Parts: sequence; C-alpha cells; structure tokens
Amino acid sequence: MSFDRMIKAIIRTKNPTVAGLDPKLDYIPSYIKEEAYAKYGKTPEGAAEALFVFNQGLIDALCDIVPAVKPQAAYYEMYGWQGVRALERTIAYAKSKGMFVITDGKRNDIGTTMEAYAKAHLGATELEGESFEAFGSDALTVNAYLGTDGVKPVLDVCKANDKGMFILVKTSNKSSGELQDRVLDDGLTIYRTMGNMCETWGEELMGSYGYSGVGAVVGATYPAQLGELRKVLPHTFFLVPGYGAQGGGAADVLPAFDENGLGAIVNSSRGIMCAWKKEEGLDPKEYAQAARREAIRMRDEITATLRFPEA
Amino acid sequence: MSFDRMIKAIIRTKNPTVAGLDPKLDYIPSYIKEEAYAKYGKTPEGAAEALFVFNQGLIDALCDIVPAVKPQAAYYEMYGWQGVRALERTIAYAKSKGMFVITDGKRNDIGTTMEAYAKAHLGATELEGESFEAFGSDALTVNAYLGTDGVKPVLDVCKANDKGMFILVKTSNKSSGELQDRVLDDGLTIYRTMGNMCETWGEELMGSYGYSGVGAVVGATYPAQLGELRKVLPHTFFLVPGYGAQGGGAADVLPAFDENGLGAIVNSSRGIMCAWKKEEGLDPKEYAQAARREAIRMRDEITATLRFPEA
Repeated sequence: MSFDRMIKAIIRTKNPTVAGLDPKLDYIPSYIKEEAYAKYGKTPEGAAEALFVFNQGLIDALCDIVPAVKPQAAYYEMYGWQGVRALERTIAYAKSKGMFVITDGKRNDIGTTMEAYAKAHLGATELEGESFEAFGSDALTVNAYLGTDGVKPVLDVCKANDKGMFILVKTSNKSSGELQDRVLDDGLTIYRTMGNMCETWGEELMGSYGYSGVGAVVGATYPAQLGELRKVLPHTFFLVPGYGAQGGGAADVLPAFDENGLGAIVNSSRGIMCAWKKEEGLDPKEYAQAARREAIRMRDEITATLRFPEA
Repeated sequence: MSFDRMIKAIIRTKNPTVAGLDPKLDYIPSYIKEEAYAKYGKTPEGAAEALFVFNQGLIDALCDIVPAVKPQAAYYEMYGWQGVRALERTIAYAKSKGMFVITDGKRNDIGTTMEAYAKAHLGATELEGESFEAFGSDALTVNAYLGTDGVKPVLDVCKANDKGMFILVKTSNKSSGELQDRVLDDGLTIYRTMGNMCETWGEELMGSYGYSGVGAVVGATYPAQLGELRKVLPHTFFLVPGYGAQGGGAADVLPAFDENGLGAIVNSSRGIMCAWKKEEGLDPKEYAQAARREAIRMRDEITATLRFPEA
C-alpha cells in the first residue's frame, strides 16, 4: 500500500535507478531476432519473442544491482496481443528475479473502468469466483487529468494489494509546459496543483519511510521544478525520466532527492538498452553485460553525493 | 485524416450515436459464458472468448443502424493478453461489418513512445521491412496533459492513415472539475484551454464537413459546458459520454450539435449492452435484439429535433 518495498530495494542495492524496458526491434541484437524468427517467423509472435528474450537477458544482468524495471506498454502494444503477452512475460520474469516492476502505461479513466485498469495491472481479476493476476505489476503510471474519480479506484487496489502508482506531474518533454506550467488564478502552476493533489491522495497510503504509495512523475529535464516539488511534496516519491538520452545529467536529478538519499528513482531506458551499440568491437552477445556496465556507471554517477540509510 | 468517414456513416444511418463495448462478464448472458468455458475452461481465454462472442452478437444486431462502436480497452486488459486479443478480434469484426471503431484507450505519452501507441492503435507496425496493423482502429481517445509532444505523433499517423483522435477536454465524471474547471490566469478554464488546443492541433487534419480529425471528449453530464464549447470550437467534433447510465438525457446532449445535426456522437455503453436485463421475461438469447431496440430508442430520442444533411 506504499512504496516501502521499492524503497527497501533501493536501500539494499544502494541504487535509486530503474531500467526502462522499451525494447524497439532496432535495439535488439540480430542473433536474438534471428532465433525468434526461426521459431515463429517474421511475425508479431516472432517480434514479441525477441522482445522477451532481449528483456530476459537484461533482467538477468541487472537484477542484483538495479532495484526496478519499467516496461513501457506502448512498445509492447505495437506488436498486438502477442506483444502484450511479451509484456506479461517480462513482468513475471522480472518479479521472479526479485525486481520491483513499474508498468509505464499512463492509464486513466473513471470509476469501474479505472478499477478495471487497476485490477488488470496491479490487482487481480475475478473470474467466476476465482481470481488471477492479469499483469501483476508493482506500480503503474497514471494520468490524473480526470481528477479523484480516476485515482480513487487505483488507491483502493493499491491498498488491498500493497502496490503503488506514479501520477504525471511535470513531464520531461519540451512541450510539457504548454499545459503543466500554466498558472491558475490562485497563483500556482498546474504541475504544482497536481503535485499537491498527489500529497492529498497519498495520505491513505503512507509508508514507513515517510513516503506514500502515490508518487509523481517529474522530469530530469526540469531540475528547478524537481527541487521546488521536492520541498513542497515531502511525502511524494518521484519517478524521474529524462536522464541520459533525453538530456538530463546527474546534477539535474540531485534536487529530486531528500537528505537521506531517498525520494526519487531515476529512469534510464535507451542508455541501458543500447549500451552495447556504443562499445566498439563488442560481441552483440555481450549486450547484457554492456547494459550492466552502463547501469553501474549511472548508479555511481548519481549516488556519488548521496548517502543512503542502512539496510 | 479527418472524421469524414465517421460523419458520412452518421449521415447515412441518420444516427449520431456510438455503442460502447465495455463487456463485463456480468453483462453477458450465461449461455454465452457456458459455451466459452466449455471450450476453453473458466480461464482468461474462456472469458475473452465470451467477451468476443457477446460483442459479435451486438455488432451483428447494430451494424446497419448504429454507425460506430467504442470498445473500452480497460475491460479487455483485465483479462490479460487473451482479453487484448478479444479487443483485436472485436475491432476487426466491427470493421468487417462496416462500422467505424473508436478505441477508448485514453493513451498518452511523448515522442517515439506516443508514436508507438499511434501505430499500434491507428496505424501499422513495421516488422523487418513488412508492416501489419496491430489493432487497426479508426480513432483513439487521447489524454493531452503532456502537450503537443503527446499529440503530434498521433496527428502524423492520422494523416498518413485517414484516422482521427478524440482528446479529453471536459470529462463526464463528478470530479472532472477538480482540475478541468480550474481557471487560468488569463481567465479561461483548463477545459476551455484544452479545447482551444484541439482547434489548433486540428488545423492540419481538416475535413470536408468543417470538422477536423482532432475531436474532443465532452460529457453529457455538463450540458452548459457542451454548449459553451460547441460555440467556441467550431471545427472540433465531440465524443459525448455520460448519456444514460451516468445520468445525461437527450436534452443534455442537444447543445453538442450544430445547426446541421452534426458535431457530436453520443455514446451509450451499459444502456445498450444491458438492455436485455431490463426486458422482463426476455430469453437471454435475444440480448442483441434488446440492444437493437434500445439503440433505436436512443437514436429516436436524440434525433427527434435534429435535421441531418442529405446523404
């Protein structure tokens, strides 16, 4: 019902980062694709198999040093239901290796429909008196433009299943300010207002580290806003995209952390997934080891000035 | 690249409504579920088969009088990849029967990730030099909290594939005002601001009826706002949820229409799907005919005072 499990994993690994699993076919070494196509043809099923095998290698190489993975639903939906099955398999595999899984789906709706999303991704689906986990992730990103009606059903599922959510507050993209930076008639920006709503929604899901199960997505590309929000949202854990490929550096993400080195988890997707393409002369079969090296470099760069509580 | 195909279907059927396909198992007659479970067991696959067969019956009964269907992604995701496959099958079947399909997914993200969603739902996915349609819907609902970076990729896919999108502007739920009704420092509400952005984004996708391919979701539960937005957003077609079960009536949706009877398509989900439960003594095998009777009643109620252009 909070992010305690995730925070414990961050403290244990001394690593407040998450590996984004957004596997485009271009990112996957040819040998994996060839094997998958040999089995299933150059079909959605073959592509989905390649995505899963690629992810599996990354998870194996990262699971002892990186606390969490964040699969991005869009890259799986691209391959239809076969791709969505690869998402399910990826989540299950990462969990079996002890990783915390954040599904980046930015889902949003109201009432029983939002409840259906929450059960799909974080809870269990009832089926004639039995129930099963459809995706069984640990956390879900949520877009709260629809207000409390779109958040309450997720809160309930989080409470019942010890799960969490991250709500879009100040996103990392260039045009995020078009709406999010607009100022309301009380003088607060929309992103600040959304942040305040996260604090309120989180009251029901407070955890033992002082952070609730309602986190916020705040981009590394806006370090001033990261610092502003860290100060005024003391109970809201941040998921920070935009590090690396999108332009954010280690100095940019520091304002996201509190004085205990907690309060934020920084995502890198392309940087880790495509590390193998940047090491000259590397055998593509070593892609996962290259990902591990990049994950360690990123961890060391970000934690150079952070001090964590003892595990 | 616009909503011309949808508008033509509305004019042909003289029916500006869309049947929501949000099939909870509770809505499905037992005989359909029993047959599906007999084939696949009480499994996600069995549930998914029941959803599809139920939808198929509805589509058969509605396709000559209702121009469009709107499957809601959450109710399929609940049943995992098997449910998502039922969504794909539903979309394909509705299209084969000549219906316009609006996938209600409220998807949102930025850049290449949003492009992945757009290709998944509206365009085609490249796969080693070939391409295939993953879901192949005609329109997608989109949440634009992230700004232009989250809309431009969908615009591009719509332009290339003659598809459209509906952006959340003023949603039908009770708490929609928490954010959407807030007033910005220029005196405009957030929903109005989002509506204005729809007009701007739509400029690239203008159609021959004066409406662009960028529509807006505006709830029947807020008739005053429907009327306000109809006046100031002359090129934005409205998708209107909230009729029927959520409390909106025929008088409430009238302000959404222009003087030609166009400009809006009104959704009913539960009202149509569960019509069979309200007719006393009805054989559940007649569920689709009951849905048809309700769809006709709804059409006649809404169009009583509308006059359409000639087909």
